[in-house]
Amino acid sequence: MSTQANHPTLLIPGPVEFDDEVLQSMAHYSESHVGPSFVTVFGEALSMLRELLITSDPTSQPFVVSGSGTLGWDFVAANLVERGDDVLVLHSGYFGDSFADCFQTYGVNATQLKAPIGSRPQLPEIERMLREKKYAAITITHVDTSTGVLSDVKAVSELVRKVSPDTLMIVDGVCSVGCEEIRFDEWNLDVVLTASQKAIGVPAGLCILMVSGRAIDRFNGRKTPPSSYFASFKNWLPKFRAQVQPYSKAHGSHYAVMQNYEAKKASYFATPSPQLIRALHTSLGQILSVPLEERFAIHKETSQKIKRAITGLGLKQLAERPENQANGMTAIYLPEGVKAPELLPNLLKKGIVFAGGLHKEITTKYIRFGHMGVSVTDPTRRDIDKAIEALKASLAEVGHQQQQEKQ
Amino acid sequence: MSTQANHPTLLIPGPVEFDDEVLQSMAHYSESHVGPSFVTVFGEALSMLRELLITSDPTSQPFVVSGSGTLGWDFVAANLVERGDDVLVLHSGYFGDSFADCFQTYGVNATQLKAPIGSRPQLPEIERMLREKKYAAITITHVDTSTGVLSDVKAVSELVRKVSPDTLMIVDGVCSVGCEEIRFDEWNLDVVLTASQKAIGVPAGLCILMVSGRAIDRFNGRKTPPSSYFASFKNWLPKFRAQVQPYSKAHGSHYAVMQNYEAKKASYFATPSPQLIRALHTSLGQILSVPLEERFAIHKETSQKIKRAITGLGLKQLAERPENQANGMTAIYLPEGVKAPELLPNLLKKGIVFAGGLHKEITTKYIRFGHMGVSVTDPTRRDIDKAIEALKASLAEVGHQQQQEKQ
Repeated sequence: MSTQANHPTLLIPGPVEFDDEVLQSMAHYSESHVGPSFVTVFGEALSMLRELLITSDPTSQPFVVSGSGTLGWDFVAANLVERGDDVLVLHSGYFGDSFADCFQTYGVNATQLKAPIGSRPQLPEIERMLREKKYAAITITHVDTSTGVLSDVKAVSELVRKVSPDTLMIVDGVCSVGCEEIRFDEWNLDVVLTASQKAIGVPAGLCILMVSGRAIDRFNGRKTPPSSYFASFKNWLPKFRAQVQPYSKAHGSHYAVMQNYEAKKASYFATPSPQLIRALHTSLGQILSVPLEERFAIHKETSQKIKRAITGLGLKQLAERPENQANGMTAIYLPEGVKAPELLPNLLKKGIVFAGGLHKEITTKYIRFGHMGVSVTDPTRRDIDKAIEALKASLAEVGHQQQQEKQ
Repeated sequence: MSTQANHPTLLIPGPVEFDDEVLQSMAHYSESHVGPSFVTVFGEALSMLRELLITSDPTSQPFVVSGSGTLGWDFVAANLVERGDDVLVLHSGYFGDSFADCFQTYGVNATQLKAPIGSRPQLPEIERMLREKKYAAITITHVDTSTGVLSDVKAVSELVRKVSPDTLMIVDGVCSVGCEEIRFDEWNLDVVLTASQKAIGVPAGLCILMVSGRAIDRFNGRKTPPSSYFASFKNWLPKFRAQVQPYSKAHGSHYAVMQNYEAKKASYFATPSPQLIRALHTSLGQILSVPLEERFAIHKETSQKIKRAITGLGLKQLAERPENQANGMTAIYLPEGVKAPELLPNLLKKGIVFAGGLHKEITTKYIRFGHMGVSVTDPTRRDIDKAIEALKASLAEVGHQQQQEKQ
């Protein structure tokens, strides 16, 4: 496709490279946001999200709204907790601070449990915190995009259910949904929020959430009204269900009454983006055409190959311990004396785009290599091999120049 | 282009038909949201928004954020007014109610001044309201998409400046920016909010605002912090400026210090959508390649032609008085006995998509015909003529069937 020809390979931790068919869906002709063709596509995309997150519980509710992943935090803070509530934010990088800031904006007290750079809060500390105070919710960044640290969502959720069963389990899956294993029902999660432009493989612009029936019950039992308009479940929920249920595949009888009752009404709250949602439909169809286990496995294998190569180059990762290492990205410390602003342009000359650092304390000291989506699942692209070769060559060149300067 | 071939012509009041080149921009290859090529495009798009809204005041600030037009209301309610403030909402259809609801969500007292269906609040009533109470802001729906009623933004703004100069003048331009005359500086406006999928000619997914320096001063003088996270100016403003100013065309020296100070920092709050913003850049380039006066004129001429044809068919508009009639859409009462749910499918068979009613009290009694963007500016498409012919034929067929049924 002409739009794809001769462009630098984008290997940052989102946006990622997109499949041609997905990009073609972005150019779909204009159609009504309430017309039957689009509503069918939207409904199917929502059903596919249930499959992607491995939930068959009919009380789970997917949301797809125009916005970025950040808007997902507003959805959580405005609907599932109330002013004066306490939440526990597990911090494994930049995004813990930001999520906490979002809660504070809504008058919710966010207590952060912080780990050193490259690490994640440990279970005994989390247990101690949960026993000290009643938290309405706990949040966990599944993969922190600033550090490449992977959290153990399953273990934390088990702990929460054991120690503080009423605490809602909120997963920021922006950099994990689509490349890291997530089992919404089995792991007993309440929210997984994400965005389109990472392992889901769709251009940025969609905020995506899966919300449990327990979380929706919590919302319905609020003492105060939700404190956002665009991000209020109140505005999206009943109409949203009416709009999509008749077209989604199989949800049992839970919504049948609402279906019959509301299906003939026009459904409108805010205009969705038909092009972005068509692209989501295309990408989810591609993702689900292969067993999810295979998808998780190839991301893990590729990640390990990358990490071995990094180690082979004498480089260290921010996430030192293997169990802390994300499978869809790698945050790499640069050698002493090499700064990201000199290395990245050199890589670009070789056709590879990596990202600079995002963690305030060490911004220029590391780079980030995203390995999610088609760059990983389509080996004919050779994106990963080319990136490793380019990194090796660029480091040699930068190192060489420095030696010359020292002479 | 294959994606455009053989599709029904979409003539609803948004989304509208899109130009091929704009759709092709939607399929642009993936690129970094902080890389120089994209940042240049983003910066230029922001500068072009200044041109579109006819503002050269360097204190005006454009915003483009992933979201729908509705999110623009949250931006206003969360940043420019505070809990307990009074706002006056001029109501000319569905969207007045919704904007008022948004304010209430943020604890702001919204008083609506309602006009009968098809009409708009009159200047003497507005003046009386403004003299009775101090309003922090007044909102006006430039074109209400549910009724096709056009408001007189210029006259209302003059009145506000005369009677209550501290009241911020907020224009909901979702169904007007790009097809109705708006002069941000000359008319002394404080906010114009809009979305991408109407007369701006870009697929849905972008929330767009122009905010005056006076409004930003108001924000900076808040007594309480803004009450949204995603929609907080606090999060978008300084970094936003840093990101875009070095690349925009000409803003005088107002931001120079901030430019120099912040230009070297990576700019990130929430990931924008490179594809949507590329499409915005393409469309704004096309729009601004012709003098805006010509663009407004052709929308007006086409609208008058449509309205004459409607009248010729013996049909009435919701907006009866010519000065109340929008130039980018027409809301049409159906003949006695004809319901929208029977007429619209008949039109679709002829390749034309119109919208049903949105105003709760009369939903099935009227239809809406959108005439914005390329369907109007590119006469070779013949979209408008085909639509008028189809409407005439469908009405005859539906009427004919009814007569047969009566026999």
